[in-house]
Amino acid sequence: MPHTPITYGVDYYPEQWPETRWAEDARLMREAGLHVVRLAEFAWALFETAEGTFEWAWLDRALAVLGEAGLKVVLCTPTPTPPAWLTETYPDCLNVDERGVRMSPGTRRHICANHADYRRLAMRITEQMAARYGKDERVIAWQTDNEFGCHDTIRCTCPSCEPAFQHWLEARYGSLEALNEAWGTNFWSQRYSAWSQIQPPRPAPADHNPGLLLDFYRFSSESWVKFNAEQVALLRQHAPGHLITHNLMIYFFHFDHYQVAQDLDFVSWDNYHHFGAQPVTVAANHDLIWGAKEKNFWVIEQQVGQVNWSVYNPQFPPGMLALKAMQAIAHGADGILYFRWRQARKGAEMYHSGLLDHAARPTRALAEAALLGERWETLAQALEGIEPAHDAAILHDFASHWALERQPHTRSLNFQAESDEPLLFAGDEPLQSIAPMNRAGLYLLPMYEALWRNNLQAAIISPEGRLERYRVLFAPQLHIATASHAARLRAWVEAGGSLVVGPRAGYKDESNGLHEVPQPGPLAELLGGTVREFDTREPGNTVELDFGDEALQAGVWCEVWEPAPGTQVLATYGRNRDGSLPYYAGQAAVLYRRLGKGQVITLGTMGGWQLIEYLLPQLGLSAPIVTPMNVEAVRRGPLLFLLNHTEQQQEVTVPRAWGDLFDKKKVEEKVRLAPYGW
Amino acid sequence: MPHTPITYGVDYYPEQWPETRWAEDARLMREAGLHVVRLAEFAWALFETAEGTFEWAWLDRALAVLGEAGLKVVLCTPTPTPPAWLTETYPDCLNVDERGVRMSPGTRRHICANHADYRRLAMRITEQMAARYGKDERVIAWQTDNEFGCHDTIRCTCPSCEPAFQHWLEARYGSLEALNEAWGTNFWSQRYSAWSQIQPPRPAPADHNPGLLLDFYRFSSESWVKFNAEQVALLRQHAPGHLITHNLMIYFFHFDHYQVAQDLDFVSWDNYHHFGAQPVTVAANHDLIWGAKEKNFWVIEQQVGQVNWSVYNPQFPPGMLALKAMQAIAHGADGILYFRWRQARKGAEMYHSGLLDHAARPTRALAEAALLGERWETLAQALEGIEPAHDAAILHDFASHWALERQPHTRSLNFQAESDEPLLFAGDEPLQSIAPMNRAGLYLLPMYEALWRNNLQAAIISPEGRLERYRVLFAPQLHIATASHAARLRAWVEAGGSLVVGPRAGYKDESNGLHEVPQPGPLAELLGGTVREFDTREPGNTVELDFGDEALQAGVWCEVWEPAPGTQVLATYGRNRDGSLPYYAGQAAVLYRRLGKGQVITLGTMGGWQLIEYLLPQLGLSAPIVTPMNVEAVRRGPLLFLLNHTEQQQEVTVPRAWGDLFDKKKVEEKVRLAPYGW
Amino acid sequence: MPHTPITYGVDYYPEQWPETRWAEDARLMREAGLHVVRLAEFAWALFETAEGTFEWAWLDRALAVLGEAGLKVVLCTPTPTPPAWLTETYPDCLNVDERGVRMSPGTRRHICANHADYRRLAMRITEQMAARYGKDERVIAWQTDNEFGCHDTIRCTCPSCEPAFQHWLEARYGSLEALNEAWGTNFWSQRYSAWSQIQPPRPAPADHNPGLLLDFYRFSSESWVKFNAEQVALLRQHAPGHLITHNLMIYFFHFDHYQVAQDLDFVSWDNYHHFGAQPVTVAANHDLIWGAKEKNFWVIEQQVGQVNWSVYNPQFPPGMLALKAMQAIAHGADGILYFRWRQARKGAEMYHSGLLDHAARPTRALAEAALLGERWETLAQALEGIEPAHDAAILHDFASHWALERQPHTRSLNFQAESDEPLLFAGDEPLQSIAPMNRAGLYLLPMYEALWRNNLQAAIISPEGRLERYRVLFAPQLHIATASHAARLRAWVEAGGSLVVGPRAGYKDESNGLHEVPQPGPLAELLGGTVREFDTREPGNTVELDFGDEALQAGVWCEVWEPAPGTQVLATYGRNRDGSLPYYAGQAAVLYRRLGKGQVITLGTMGGWQLIEYLLPQLGLSAPIVTPMNVEAVRRGPLLFLLNHTEQQQEVTVPRAWGDLFDKKKVEEKVRLAPYGW
Repeated sequence: MPHTPITYGVDYYPEQWPETRWAEDARLMREAGLHVVRLAEFAWALFETAEGTFEWAWLDRALAVLGEAGLKVVLCTPTPTPPAWLTETYPDCLNVDERGVRMSPGTRRHICANHADYRRLAMRITEQMAARYGKDERVIAWQTDNEFGCHDTIRCTCPSCEPAFQHWLEARYGSLEALNEAWGTNFWSQRYSAWSQIQPPRPAPADHNPGLLLDFYRFSSESWVKFNAEQVALLRQHAPGHLITHNLMIYFFHFDHYQVAQDLDFVSWDNYHHFGAQPVTVAANHDLIWGAKEKNFWVIEQQVGQVNWSVYNPQFPPGMLALKAMQAIAHGADGILYFRWRQARKGAEMYHSGLLDHAARPTRALAEAALLGERWETLAQALEGIEPAHDAAILHDFASHWALERQPHTRSLNFQAESDEPLLFAGDEPLQSIAPMNRAGLYLLPMYEALWRNNLQAAIISPEGRLERYRVLFAPQLHIATASHAARLRAWVEAGGSLVVGPRAGYKDESNGLHEVPQPGPLAELLGGTVREFDTREPGNTVELDFGDEALQAGVWCEVWEPAPGTQVLATYGRNRDGSLPYYAGQAAVLYRRLGKGQVITLGTMGGWQLIEYLLPQLGLSAPIVTPMNVEAVRRGPLLFLLNHTEQQQEVTVPRAWGDLFDKKKVEEKVRLAPYGW
Repeated sequence: MPHTPITYGVDYYPEQWPETRWAEDARLMREAGLHVVRLAEFAWALFETAEGTFEWAWLDRALAVLGEAGLKVVLCTPTPTPPAWLTETYPDCLNVDERGVRMSPGTRRHICANHADYRRLAMRITEQMAARYGKDERVIAWQTDNEFGCHDTIRCTCPSCEPAFQHWLEARYGSLEALNEAWGTNFWSQRYSAWSQIQPPRPAPADHNPGLLLDFYRFSSESWVKFNAEQVALLRQHAPGHLITHNLMIYFFHFDHYQVAQDLDFVSWDNYHHFGAQPVTVAANHDLIWGAKEKNFWVIEQQVGQVNWSVYNPQFPPGMLALKAMQAIAHGADGILYFRWRQARKGAEMYHSGLLDHAARPTRALAEAALLGERWETLAQALEGIEPAHDAAILHDFASHWALERQPHTRSLNFQAESDEPLLFAGDEPLQSIAPMNRAGLYLLPMYEALWRNNLQAAIISPEGRLERYRVLFAPQLHIATASHAARLRAWVEAGGSLVVGPRAGYKDESNGLHEVPQPGPLAELLGGTVREFDTREPGNTVELDFGDEALQAGVWCEVWEPAPGTQVLATYGRNRDGSLPYYAGQAAVLYRRLGKGQVITLGTMGGWQLIEYLLPQLGLSAPIVTPMNVEAVRRGPLLFLLNHTEQQQEVTVPRAWGDLFDKKKVEEKVRLAPYGW
Repeated sequence: MPHTPITYGVDYYPEQWPETRWAEDARLMREAGLHVVRLAEFAWALFETAEGTFEWAWLDRALAVLGEAGLKVVLCTPTPTPPAWLTETYPDCLNVDERGVRMSPGTRRHICANHADYRRLAMRITEQMAARYGKDERVIAWQTDNEFGCHDTIRCTCPSCEPAFQHWLEARYGSLEALNEAWGTNFWSQRYSAWSQIQPPRPAPADHNPGLLLDFYRFSSESWVKFNAEQVALLRQHAPGHLITHNLMIYFFHFDHYQVAQDLDFVSWDNYHHFGAQPVTVAANHDLIWGAKEKNFWVIEQQVGQVNWSVYNPQFPPGMLALKAMQAIAHGADGILYFRWRQARKGAEMYHSGLLDHAARPTRALAEAALLGERWETLAQALEGIEPAHDAAILHDFASHWALERQPHTRSLNFQAESDEPLLFAGDEPLQSIAPMNRAGLYLLPMYEALWRNNLQAAIISPEGRLERYRVLFAPQLHIATASHAARLRAWVEAGGSLVVGPRAGYKDESNGLHEVPQPGPLAELLGGTVREFDTREPGNTVELDFGDEALQAGVWCEVWEPAPGTQVLATYGRNRDGSLPYYAGQAAVLYRRLGKGQVITLGTMGGWQLIEYLLPQLGLSAPIVTPMNVEAVRRGPLLFLLNHTEQQQEVTVPRAWGDLFDKKKVEEKVRLAPYGW
């Protein structure tokens, strides 16, 4: 598999501007050092003006103008936005959400992946485009569709999805008897006597069966995975020399990124810094995207100023654009494309900044992009084929995420909760502050943050990933666990790995039922113990973890563990925040065991990043460089990126003298970083 | 009518476990001292596998295994969960909520009581079960359905309900003219010229007519009352020797408990300690359930650990299960059945604790249940036929509740409000803290709490109840009042009763209109005055009540009363919390009058429990035993229950030496109670 | 056009009370000095008992009784409440909201203005009424319908509206090509190839095209404007001597008041003092209503005590009713009618106070109304033909409002936001406190408040209004601006006007797209500069405005301006609230230029009233009378109204001795005002 290409470019919608302007735009792009343009996203109505009537002339002309200016092109399949004639002709292709509300046309992603006519027409426009531009040398890559899952559109309960779901279940279970057994349909008289009785989860008085829910979520995810795969197959056939990618997004977790990534040459993502995002959460996003395929990626939409959709939409201060781009590169981005070239004058996104403003004036952002453009050649040579260093990996499993999504069991772990209330405290200080849009990272982020604060780098990968590349693994939410997970992890530990497992591990089987053995189910032997019972605690009601030499704070979820012989108790529960003793004071909260050449630490409770930081020495990890808060040091091959995310000047002491990639002069051990500098 | 039987048992779902396990489960139940098992709840799909095809073999076998172990059985009609084939065949039996959303199948209570086919099939399965097991000696009782009203399902606006509602109205009013007059349909052109024009209250731009709303709520309640009565009739016919009960729930107030109770031999309820519940609110629930039939009851589902549905779901600490059971018994429970025997592995309730955990390990809860099991024989002998002592009764009227539900007139009295903001203050101290799920008790709880803190016991009964059994009556929300209410209460007062009436009394007539005379309408003569006007005050904006010798705080609703000749003004309004004077300062807030041998106190405003406590001496009530906060002393016949709801050790001085029921040795006047002890 | 008549009266619903009571009611009205009665609102079902069957006898009798008592009458067309037979016969006349929910009958305003049969029958009942009572001398005026826009009912997405909207668009744009261009439908593949493809904005995954939204809002507004105009035409034809009005409401901004007003003889409004309303917001309402036609108005529904629909509904303290009436008169009300004569006993508004209570007892409110009644003759003579003095005008544009409504771009400017969080701070003091129901006034109120606190009076008028009458103009939200706006304002400034323009001016073209030139688009030359970029800031994150001699606070929206040659920078941005510097520190925030004989001040950011107050001297404005906080001095012709909105006694020094209108004796310079006095 070839390297992800090193690319610097911009997203452009020529169809939104007069044709007479195109050449000037192309000239300005080149002047800013940009050499790739993404085109044709959402342009279906312009390609197919009536069913079966295709018009390519305008794109031909755009390619000509851009090509003449020396720009290469990434094309997008326009399938998230069916033309108005399509939804008028086939109104039942409009998707239906979990409240049973049928979407109307006029925006985007209002369609059902399982509707036969939509699907047929989506593949036909893909094939037509691929056939026409698949051999075009100006085109270097394709983006399939746009942001699967955007606007919560993965899960559709429409009449087309109902039989599709039934067939999917039939294929999965073979017989109704097997399904009834797996889901436990003797509960609440849910037993099915015909496949046709099974419905997607629509509004109901009480909670649907977790088995049905998880399978519906899998089915929904796979519907889009297959939709993507079908497009990829057409592109591979008609555009054999071109690379294929898709643009993932922040925490759109309703489909399995690992499965989509498998079918692509590399993944891309759209890096938007919504209100409340922090340097650490953006870093985690990069590493999550890197882990989608365990390979370098593109930021195919890099924010350049304010967005139009966050609760508050502040403007980027000077330096922010370049800093965001360098952070992406440090974490493994091989391509940076800015969204968007020029701010729109019309349509729902008109308040979204561009490198030109809506009146075509160059912005501060363009100047910053050009600054990087000047250095791009140097960067590209240094980065080619170079992956970021990873000191550890964090396992992330989508099925587990979906299971936890629907059974948080406490409002504190509800990914949709609107409240920002801190969950954990040390004294009166909140230990954690997860922004609303990052609640999906409730399990993952505290572990990630502990590493990040110590400039330790972690790829966020699938439990099916290439574990052998890592020496330390964190498993914050291995909720659904099978014998095969257990065997795979055991072999890895025995070979010398250090594994840290978080609470709620191994509770569920593949059908989202509880294992018939005590928690952690099939992981019990690996972790060296079982859960006797667990408690949940309301926000702020923390409990001490007594490690002997240190007392740390935990809360939210508290498992009482019974260690197996040979397993050590690393920490027991201590006092409540109000000084009283919980009934499980003195009982095991954190376990430790050696196994073969490796070791396993099991956390029966949730702490802040401090808890994980405390464990780092035991895992053989320590900060390679110490930096001030929100100054990030990231290693990518021989390169060290120092990123100052603060608005103050900062100073960093690096462990040895280093060369400056751009200045070619030696850098002393003390590096001074300007505000937002690098 | 026979006594409610003394029973100790558990809820069991053999159909959810391998048949090979049943005998071991039965053995463990008996070992824990349990002697009754509730079975077959929700099992319709297993009894009727296709329309008209019945299968009883599995239940026969379960009864055999359990019976051999010496266990008696309570059977449930499985009607809250129609099988999937039923909703597939008759999709229009699915209920429609007040937003107009049709429910989908897959959970429970998704059906309309007025749908002809559902109704027919529900009665057929009831009759079939009754016919088969009605003479079985292992069976001692039946539970109809499960938790009417759960998940807000009483009120259905579906097309089956529309004509049913019209017929109900026709029967109630006789003529459209009478209905138009009663509802005042000259308002907003609402006049009906045909019965067919009347619809259930569906989404509309503004508020529906209160007359229509109240009648729709009555109709909805009666739909389920009749549904239950029809099942009871079938059971009485086919299972003549068996007792019949139904399991009520916490504050499911959309149907009239008093009407349902009339048709049962005794009532049961499901005692769940949601997050935010307090000992006093659980005590009030018991007394509310006792009052449903003014008779001892069962807790047919007693929580044993964490539930799966509250906002936060903490685990029970040691001692809590037994304490909860003893509290129930003290308040008149003759039966305790634990929910559930074994934690489920599948289905929506899998995070609900059982006496065995999901992996069949005995829990702390089982050990506690067994402790009580050992003492059950002693308890049973002492309790047989013995009712709790009641120092007073509190009147609770469902129609008044429904009227207040839809016209709270201030957000403070909105039963659905999500906010927890305290309503009343003394200085900076909030006087009241009603948990979200108890908002339905906004009127009732302050009165109850004053009694409870003084270890005074109150049955919560219907205004149609047996008033003659009580010396003191509280009427916190006698909002809809008729001449017959007035006459009944007057006779009771004249015979020597002490009556305390809360604000908003007698505002409404039976059609939910205002009386044509001043408030309190037909109660004016009884209370000895009329309301001149009333004010509402936002949360925290309290006002002093000047009793001459004492100043107490009130707020939320402030009526200005004009006493009739001979009526005393007990308290007038004083200063606002900010020190200023309200315009009604000095005017009458609390009235007092003597009437025959009795007395009446009328509260024109809402205070905390302190206000009621202040009045106790006047009512001839005083604490029989003084206990620390959250230590409850409850008298049931010759028995005194001392219940320590705190996690600290507590000491209580009892007025005389007492015998310990279990130890048989004399107890001194000072009783030491362990944390959660009794 | 004749003066608005001077009128004192009450709203009466004889159909809700026994006919035997009418004469007594009439007598009491006269006794209180009331001489006009508004009748027949909502009475359609009583006029047309079945389709085509009309009954007028009851109204004839009511007119007779009232006329005999010497009362004049205002009649209402009863069209907001179609009878039950109408919605039963034509169920598709029920409107559908933007969530796609079809309304049900039973309340009011549940109908679609574009439904042919409803429209036909609404006009027929109007014509029938007009034909019958159009020559009746007891009738002096007509009110069309009631409160257009109440309960959010302007915007209907029903199947009748869909083709009506398409035809409206066809008439507006002529060709699909023009529409596609205007809306920018190349964005997201929205291009329409047939008119039939265009739908009203129904539920969709993402935001609809702003062009479509604004046109739909215009169409929706015009639907009701035309509905009103059609009624007016019938009334003019059949009731030639009668005046015509309509009752507007607080911030029901979904239809264009200026357009409705054009067709009326004068406007009326319903003055309700919801919880959280303040004297300044009520004053602003009066001036907004005055500006609807730039003519005196009626308060046709004046609140008399508590309402039934606010979050909290406190009672009016003594003096409040008369104070509210006097405030209305001061601001240009020529008529005061109280809502309502007697509190209802039935229907959704039964908790709404009346001058009589529900039991027909006279209330404090009646006594206060009578007090004013005694003085009415004096008042009427003094007020006839006299308009309030206006020191300035504030421009308010509905299309701009609708554009800002759907693209607030920051939660702070979301008119629907539920939060009350203060937006601006000076130190720790919040600068602004806009009550939830006044959020629609977010742009307008700070400017208004600055004037109001200085007893300066401002009419709130349309940009198409009679600018020549004013010396100072404020334009807080001139968001959609055209060349014609620019030319009109320029001519006005050049002639000597002082113009103050707020942020977000001139961003949008008439199709709700961004202009293709920099902001402020066509206003750039007038304002003397362009916006380089803008920032948004979260609540509380204020920034200093450095005026050289003074530092004020601003926030929420911060534009960085580039002044044109000759334009002065009045203020630049300074420090953030936390002391740090924003990146645009030192850049232009407020511009100033002279133009012809006039001047223009442009505010690039939002401040509290303090910012505007600081600018008053520059505008040649200063407080004519200095009064304590919440004591208002209002000038209407030769009359000076002093209104004490506080519950304390207050003292005001007036600039010269004045005569008391009622006492006829000279008033010294110091006037003492009782609590709520005038």
